Amino acid sequence: MSLGQIIDGKAHALRLRADIAQAVIAAQAAGARAPALAVVLVGEDPASQVYVRNKIAACHEAGIISIEHRRDATLSQAELLALVAELNRDRQVDGILVQLPLPPHIDSAAVISAIAPDKDVDGFHPVNAGRLATGLDGFVPCTPLGCLRLLEATLGDISGAEAIVIGRSNIVGRPMASLLIGASATVTVAHSRSRDLPELTRRADIVVAAVGRPEMVRGHWLKPGCTVIDVGINRVAKESGTGTRLVGDVAFAEAADVAAHITPVPGGVGPMTIACLLENTLKAASRA
Amino acid sequence: MSLGQIIDGKAHALRLRADIAQAVIAAQAAGARAPALAVVLVGEDPASQVYVRNKIAACHEAGIISIEHRRDATLSQAELLALVAELNRDRQVDGILVQLPLPPHIDSAAVISAIAPDKDVDGFHPVNAGRLATGLDGFVPCTPLGCLRLLEATLGDISGAEAIVIGRSNIVGRPMASLLIGASATVTVAHSRSRDLPELTRRADIVVAAVGRPEMVRGHWLKPGCTVIDVGINRVAKESGTGTRLVGDVAFAEAADVAAHITPVPGGVGPMTIACLLENTLKAASRA
Repeated sequence: MSLGQIIDGKAHALRLRADIAQAVIAAQAAGARAPALAVVLVGEDPASQVYVRNKIAACHEAGIISIEHRRDATLSQAELLALVAELNRDRQVDGILVQLPLPPHIDSAAVISAIAPDKDVDGFHPVNAGRLATGLDGFVPCTPLGCLRLLEATLGDISGAEAIVIGRSNIVGRPMASLLIGASATVTVAHSRSRDLPELTRRADIVVAAVGRPEMVRGHWLKPGCTVIDVGINRVAKESGTGTRLVGDVAFAEAADVAAHITPVPGGVGPMTIACLLENTLKAASRA
Repeated sequence: MSLGQIIDGKAHALRLRADIAQAVIAAQAAGARAPALAVVLVGEDPASQVYVRNKIAACHEAGIISIEHRRDATLSQAELLALVAELNRDRQVDGILVQLPLPPHIDSAAVISAIAPDKDVDGFHPVNAGRLATGLDGFVPCTPLGCLRLLEATLGDISGAEAIVIGRSNIVGRPMASLLIGASATVTVAHSRSRDLPELTRRADIVVAAVGRPEMVRGHWLKPGCTVIDVGINRVAKESGTGTRLVGDVAFAEAADVAAHITPVPGGVGPMTIACLLENTLKAASRA
């Protein structure tokens, strides 16, 4: 199998993280303090705990200070908003990350909107979404930013390329489309209501799959020689019947036979998401 | 010619304006004051003068108070920002419209960002762009909003339809794409860097042309039975050699032979833009 060249997200992420670590050292040599990221985790969601642990470890390696704020799942929305307000005011804090999902009694949109836009390293605040949508400088969500970095590292200039983004979430699909439009690709946004998704996908030089459905995109959906960025991280039962494994939104083995370049899951987009969080935190510190 | 059914933007706009006038009367009967729109015009651009005059006349007819602030082209940016700040504070002003383009010595983005987002009836403020991009309620730019209204009045539910937006400006193309994605169409954004625009356009059930190039979109670019929304307003020399006439971005006669529905220029999108400005002003007043 696998005529396709695998895009090694882990290697790209390690290079980006090394560059960030260098920049942090250089800034400190010039008299700046170390960048500082406040990480807020509410409740006991096991996946969130893993993500937060990985983010904090990555900060540490890059010389970025991370300040963890763990709270019980019973935390009230008012208490969380008070914490965010305190972090907004704290001049020792450059970036604020509130790990999602939040417990159901808390309005995530209200919390995200309460973060100071210039500390919003996740890029989820409406002001940053607007800056991205209108071509102004701001914070771009880490996952689509990581996808763009992988595409540009693999393909160089993507101006004029035909791209499809499958999925229209605020966290991946929509900002991904804005980034690709900004990079002068011709961009189609498809989603669950789209008719004949295989045919739409077959037109594209670049396929970004972000739907959260295991192995939905099949090999025969792809144009030969295309580049596939798989944002999905889905845990499925192993064929052997015992244990689970991670798969993306793309049927990898099939797709790798058709695509010229493809990201694996795990080891593709995931590591770049964390590296871009560090990049955003460094940017926040540089602006502060 | 013209198998296509012409979408009468003027008639749609008159109905919308009548509805708004009714709503203004009803709100006043319930004790509210009349909605008020501040219109700022800097300099002597002849097209801007016509637009402003038309907007003010439409306000008047709908029972909306318009307060015109005309300034010389020599106005400094600081003076304009001071005027905007004053209008932001003025509790008698619901909506603020700064007519574009501004003279070249003024940074339009800075002025737009200075308008209070909740008075930004043009929907150009990054906060409103972000609300639109993330599916939150806010002010949507008048031209794409008018286009969506015409599409929904003509086609009903557009969920699953394949749409192409030609042009990626902040004023039309990008917000139009966000609106169409929100309405569950499959949306392609094409632009000057796109390859084979005729072929891309031929796929689409809905074509929104917003490039500012006279009659660029030809009849043979269109899928038979599609719906065409022509945002272009281009003044060209008459074939007779004397005088000028207005044409859109679509070659109307050719396109009308292929499309099922098409907006004319003038009398299509233009009137809806003004009607949607009134709608946004009423919305601002209702929220105030």
